[in-house]
Amino acid sequence: MRGMEIKTYCRELADRAQVAGRAMARTAGVARAAALREVAQRLQEDSAAIIAANAKDLQTGRDAGLSAAMLDRLKLDEKRIGSMADSVRQIADQPDPVGEVIHGCIRPNGLRLQKVRVPIGVVLIIYESRPNVTSDAAALCVKSGNAAILRGGKEAAHSNAAIAACVRGGLQDAGLNPDAVQVVEVADRAVVGELLKLEGKIDLAIPRGGESLIRAVVEQAHIPVIKHYAGNCHVYVDSWADDEMALNICVNAKTQRPGVCNAAETFLFHRDAAQRGLLRRVCDELAKRKVEVRGDAETCRLFPGAKPATEQDWVTEYLDLIVAVKVVGGVDEAIEHVNRYGSKHTDAIVTRDFAAAERFTAEVDSANVFVNCSTRFSDGGEYGLGAEIGISTDKLHARGPMGAADLTTYKWVAYGNGQLRS
Amino acid sequence: MRGMEIKTYCRELADRAQVAGRAMARTAGVARAAALREVAQRLQEDSAAIIAANAKDLQTGRDAGLSAAMLDRLKLDEKRIGSMADSVRQIADQPDPVGEVIHGCIRPNGLRLQKVRVPIGVVLIIYESRPNVTSDAAALCVKSGNAAILRGGKEAAHSNAAIAACVRGGLQDAGLNPDAVQVVEVADRAVVGELLKLEGKIDLAIPRGGESLIRAVVEQAHIPVIKHYAGNCHVYVDSWADDEMALNICVNAKTQRPGVCNAAETFLFHRDAAQRGLLRRVCDELAKRKVEVRGDAETCRLFPGAKPATEQDWVTEYLDLIVAVKVVGGVDEAIEHVNRYGSKHTDAIVTRDFAAAERFTAEVDSANVFVNCSTRFSDGGEYGLGAEIGISTDKLHARGPMGAADLTTYKWVAYGNGQLRS
Repeated sequence: MRGMEIKTYCRELADRAQVAGRAMARTAGVARAAALREVAQRLQEDSAAIIAANAKDLQTGRDAGLSAAMLDRLKLDEKRIGSMADSVRQIADQPDPVGEVIHGCIRPNGLRLQKVRVPIGVVLIIYESRPNVTSDAAALCVKSGNAAILRGGKEAAHSNAAIAACVRGGLQDAGLNPDAVQVVEVADRAVVGELLKLEGKIDLAIPRGGESLIRAVVEQAHIPVIKHYAGNCHVYVDSWADDEMALNICVNAKTQRPGVCNAAETFLFHRDAAQRGLLRRVCDELAKRKVEVRGDAETCRLFPGAKPATEQDWVTEYLDLIVAVKVVGGVDEAIEHVNRYGSKHTDAIVTRDFAAAERFTAEVDSANVFVNCSTRFSDGGEYGLGAEIGISTDKLHARGPMGAADLTTYKWVAYGNGQLRS
Repeated sequence: MRGMEIKTYCRELADRAQVAGRAMARTAGVARAAALREVAQRLQEDSAAIIAANAKDLQTGRDAGLSAAMLDRLKLDEKRIGSMADSVRQIADQPDPVGEVIHGCIRPNGLRLQKVRVPIGVVLIIYESRPNVTSDAAALCVKSGNAAILRGGKEAAHSNAAIAACVRGGLQDAGLNPDAVQVVEVADRAVVGELLKLEGKIDLAIPRGGESLIRAVVEQAHIPVIKHYAGNCHVYVDSWADDEMALNICVNAKTQRPGVCNAAETFLFHRDAAQRGLLRRVCDELAKRKVEVRGDAETCRLFPGAKPATEQDWVTEYLDLIVAVKVVGGVDEAIEHVNRYGSKHTDAIVTRDFAAAERFTAEVDSANVFVNCSTRFSDGGEYGLGAEIGISTDKLHARGPMGAADLTTYKWVAYGNGQLRS
């Protein structure tokens, strides 16, 4: 496609989305939920076709030398398609966010004022290999009365097209405009740049993927972007931590699924906890599980298996079996470290000390701040939001895991009987 | 100041703001409210000093040939300072937005999850001539536990410095960090550009002023900006409008204060309403009040005093005694016109028809949609928000008039007893 063709393609895509978005905004919540149940059923009924399409992507991926991990993320089977359908059904079952009166009052002049939740309009989602994002993102956009433009990775093109066919078919069956969910079918990267410039036609972009993808989107965008940068998550083990609990939380936060954003990357130990043998015990357990420990000088003394950490280690999101460990003087130093080196994603304290828990939750400036549990819980599903459209490390509009309600805005509606301003 | 000095100046300003912002986030609501009452008292006690400082600005303004309207906006007297102090007291009296639990539940695994309102951090406000913005913006930022960096117009430099001295004095008296409110004292425009680049130090920029100021801020900013573009507001007079009410609303919306963003710029008349003489009656009344009418062909036939409108008139925010008038076939065409040409600010319908009111409020995609009242009511004060930090025509984070709560974000706090993810 040449430049002009890409421009036209994008504009037409966005125009169709805008028309569909306006229609979606007028639909009843029950109609959107019914459409999603149709979508879920189609996903299961058409699973053979989805698996066949996925097989093509997998073959292309193998030919292109994708890693085993990448191929695993790409792969769909009956079970994974079943979870995708379940997720769509869960989203369908949630309360309708549209039309909620967030605030309402009668003003002294008799004006009846209401702040009413409404869809944002047209949402562009840009993501990488996992094809389940196609059904999750589509379902969340439909649930919230928006139109979605989905731009998945080219390595999942056939899978995404097959999933999108189920989604659009489900919308159509339920009498909704199928253009409420459109998949970008042109692989050319210029399409993304062009879509990101369509201020006034596309209301929001949500990139899901690695930091380089997100930075590229932010740099090109003329439309608002909700970002998810790094997940450099911390666990601070306080002097008053329960040793057993601290051990379990550290191991779970680091090793239960190390490749995801809410896995822990740095452990901070209160000096007392470190010196009573807890640091050693945790590091021994991690080493058993093939985790490489990179520690400050004190950690290296207490756990000789540690490699010395550099300044770079405190800011690194390893997404791997590596952890940075540091000994701190107390909750003040822990808070200071987290706010300085962290990524404002998810940070946890393990303590029995009420005052330390209060300080940590109040003063750590992160989207998710936990007491006595694994960092792995910062997740839309775990928060009861159904599937998540992403996790925001921004502070504006939405912070942390984002569900359907985060794809809404509001309008102020006032009902009067001839009020004039004097 | 040279480039390096400006960079250093801005960085130090932002660093002080960040320290103050962290301290503010830890303060009790009562302490912030008490500080604001001190500020209000100082504004009144120091009114002579403020008026003296303002006299210098007025003199400089007259020497520079500022228009009478500009000089009027700049001018402070006892009465205006009294209103500024009242406004600060009203903000002090509002409920504390910080710490509000927006949502809370216990998850099936026993995690006690809460979504808690917290300050955004450091807010940069860039504004033009009116010095009352200095106390309003400072008070809203203090109320919401943020640190403010205020950059007013250079024509109000002495006035703003005198007002800021009261604010900082009040903070200090109440035991809060005075750096929670800092005024940029360097007139060089490069300072704004530099501040807008301080991602990670400044969390939000709010420009208040004309469209060119706002576009310039958006173009330079690496930090989030909440925008307020044009206020091209409409009144649609339906066939079922009460004639008397329609007349009064049109006159009020256009003439009560034509230079502000929520004044009406276009009237749409249902053909039936136009043909029964209502268009003529409204236009006659406007003409009496020196309003120039620019109409479509039908309007020009019904009101011979009208000049023919061009396509440009439908998109223009006159901010003046000019109005564009068009005859439409019904509520559909009215909605279509507003969504096509409007600026998503404030649009009103005058009707007794319930269904038309429902359609208009549901389908007009604007921040404020009114039934049977003047567009002039879209205002933080009128909505009960106290003074407003601005009116957002964006859809994300905040829409319409913004009060103290709109200067907050939230964090997710989870309290557990050792929960692990499996």
